[in-house]
Amino acid sequence: MSDVAGVSPEQQAVEQTLVDTVVASFDACEDPRLKEVMVSLTRHLHAFIRDVRLTEDEWAAAIEFLTKAGHITDDVRQEFILLSDTLGASMQTININNQAYADATEATVFGPFFVEDSPAIEQGEDMAFGAPGEPCWVTGTVTGTDGKPLVGAKIEVWEADEDGLYDVQRDAGARAARAHLFTDAEGGYRFWGLTPTPYPIPDDGPVGKMLAAVGRSPLRASHLHFMVTHEGCRTLVTHIFPEGDPIGWKDTVFGVKESLIKRFERQAAGTPTPDGRVVDGTWSTVRFDIVLAPAGA
Amino acid sequence: MSDVAGVSPEQQAVEQTLVDTVVASFDACEDPRLKEVMVSLTRHLHAFIRDVRLTEDEWAAAIEFLTKAGHITDDVRQEFILLSDTLGASMQTININNQAYADATEATVFGPFFVEDSPAIEQGEDMAFGAPGEPCWVTGTVTGTDGKPLVGAKIEVWEADEDGLYDVQRDAGARAARAHLFTDAEGGYRFWGLTPTPYPIPDDGPVGKMLAAVGRSPLRASHLHFMVTHEGCRTLVTHIFPEGDPIGWKDTVFGVKESLIKRFERQAAGTPTPDGRVVDGTWSTVRFDIVLAPAGA
Ligand SMILES: [Fe+2]
Ligand SMILES: [Fe+2]
Repeated sequence: MSDVAGVSPEQQAVEQTLVDTVVASFDACEDPRLKEVMVSLTRHLHAFIRDVRLTEDEWAAAIEFLTKAGHITDDVRQEFILLSDTLGASMQTININNQAYADATEATVFGPFFVEDSPAIEQGEDMAFGAPGEPCWVTGTVTGTDGKPLVGAKIEVWEADEDGLYDVQRDAGARAARAHLFTDAEGGYRFWGLTPTPYPIPDDGPVGKMLAAVGRSPLRASHLHFMVTHEGCRTLVTHIFPEGDPIGWKDTVFGVKESLIKRFERQAAGTPTPDGRVVDGTWSTVRFDIVLAPAGA
Repeated sequence: MSDVAGVSPEQQAVEQTLVDTVVASFDACEDPRLKEVMVSLTRHLHAFIRDVRLTEDEWAAAIEFLTKAGHITDDVRQEFILLSDTLGASMQTININNQAYADATEATVFGPFFVEDSPAIEQGEDMAFGAPGEPCWVTGTVTGTDGKPLVGAKIEVWEADEDGLYDVQRDAGARAARAHLFTDAEGGYRFWGLTPTPYPIPDDGPVGKMLAAVGRSPLRASHLHFMVTHEGCRTLVTHIFPEGDPIGWKDTVFGVKESLIKRFERQAAGTPTPDGRVVDGTWSTVRFDIVLAPAGA
C-alpha cells in the first residue's frame, strides 16, 4: 500500500513514515489481539486516506457525518449499525464467522429487530398475532449435516408486516409477526406467518443521506428472519428471501444469498389451506429445510 | 487485498464477491469524487475486516465504541477528532494537503482549540493575558520561499497554560494565551508568550480508554500553535516544539516534525529581557523564522 500513483518519492516517504510511527505507537500493547486489530486498522485507514488523497474539507465532512450518526443513535435507533450494514461490513463479518460447512444452511445479517422475549407458539399456529399482511404457510425440517433430524431445535422467526414495520417500530412493547417454536419428533416445523414484503431501513439520518447522495435505495429485499439453535450445533442466524422479489439482489445491506432465495407459492383466494384454516383472499406457502453445522465448525 | 492467509479459495471468493457487490452498489453515483471515495472506503474497510478476521464480538465492540464517542461529543468536546488524531489520520490528511514546497515551513495538526476572535496585540506585547506559566520571548520573520519579507502577514498564536489547559477549557468565553499580530515592515514579529508544557488530550471518554488499553499516553508534546496567513500564500497551520521535550516524538497525535523542533533557551532568574520587562523568575526565548509557500503550491 505504500505506493500511491502520481505522488513524489519524497512525499511517499513522509506519508509512510507517519504510518510506521502510528503502527509503532501500539508496540507496548500487552493484548496481542488488540494490537493486531489496531495495527491493521491503522494501515488500512491510512491507505484509504492516501489512496483518495483525502482533502481537509472531506476529512471535516467525515467528522461531521460521524458526529450526526452519534447524535441520532439512541436505545432504539442505531445509525452505526446502519452504516456498517450499508457498507457491507456487517455481512462481511457474518461471512467470516459463519463459513460454509458441508451443506449447512448459510447465514446472513442479524438486523436490529430481534427481541429476546418472543411469544411461544405451537406447531401450526400463527406468529402474525394480527400484524397486517398476506398469510404464508411456512414448513420445513431442521437436520444436522449428517441428515439426521434435530428434535426440539428452537426456531425464532420474525418479520416486518406489509406496511414495512416491525412490531417494535410501532410500539416498543408490542409483540407481533414474531414467535418461537420447537421442532417435532421428526425435526419438522410448520407455522403461519406473513408473505414478506420490502421495507426501507430508517433513512432520515446521515446514512439515509449518504444512500441518497450515491443514488442507492434504502430498501431491503423482502425477507423472513430465522434464528435456529440446537445443542451441539452452530447457531444459525439467517433469512429466507422470496424468488422474484422486486428488490432482491439490490438489498441495501447485501444480505441476499442464492441458497436463501425460496419459492413462495402464491395461492388464489379460496384455495384450501393445509390445516383447514379459512383465509380471506390470497395466501402463499414456502418450504425451508434447515441444516445446522456442528458447533465449532 | 483479495488473498488472506489461511483462508480457503472458496471462502476468499465469497468474501471478494461481497466486496465487488458493495463496490457495484455505487455505480449509479453521479458525483465522481464521492463515488471514488466510497469505493475506496469500501475496499479498505473490507480489507481490514478480512485481514484481521474480525469476530462478531469485536464488531459489536466497534459499534459500542462509536456509539459512546457519539454520545460524549458536543459543542466543546469532539471525540471523533480525538480518534482521528490518535490514529494519525488527522496528521496524514495534513501531510497530503500541505506537501513540502521548497523550504516552506512544514504544517502540523490544527487541534480543537483555535477560536476566531483572539485579541489583537502589538509587536512585543504579551499574549498570555495572565495565563499561568513561564514567560517566553518569541521572535522571527515571515518570508516567502523567495526569501523576501512578507509585510503585514497575520500571525495567530495560541497555547495551553502551565496547567495544561487552554483558556476555553477553563471558561468558553475566556481569552488568554492566545492573540494575533501582524509582521512589521521587515517581515519581523516578536511577542511574549509562555514556555510550552505537555498536556493530555481529554481522556475520560472512549478514546482515552483505547489509549489506556493499548498502553499509550494521552500526552501531547509541548507546543505553541501558529496560523500564518498572507495574500498570495498558502495558509500555514503549524506548531513549534521545544527541543528536549519529555514527550516529544511520543506525541499522542503524531504532530512532531524534525523541522518544527526549536531550541527554547532557558534564561536564569534575573537575566535582563530584550525589552526591559522585569520577569519574576526564569524565562525562555525562541526564534521561529517562518517561510510561506505560494498559494496553490
Ligand atoms: Fe429484517
Ligand atoms: Fe494544542
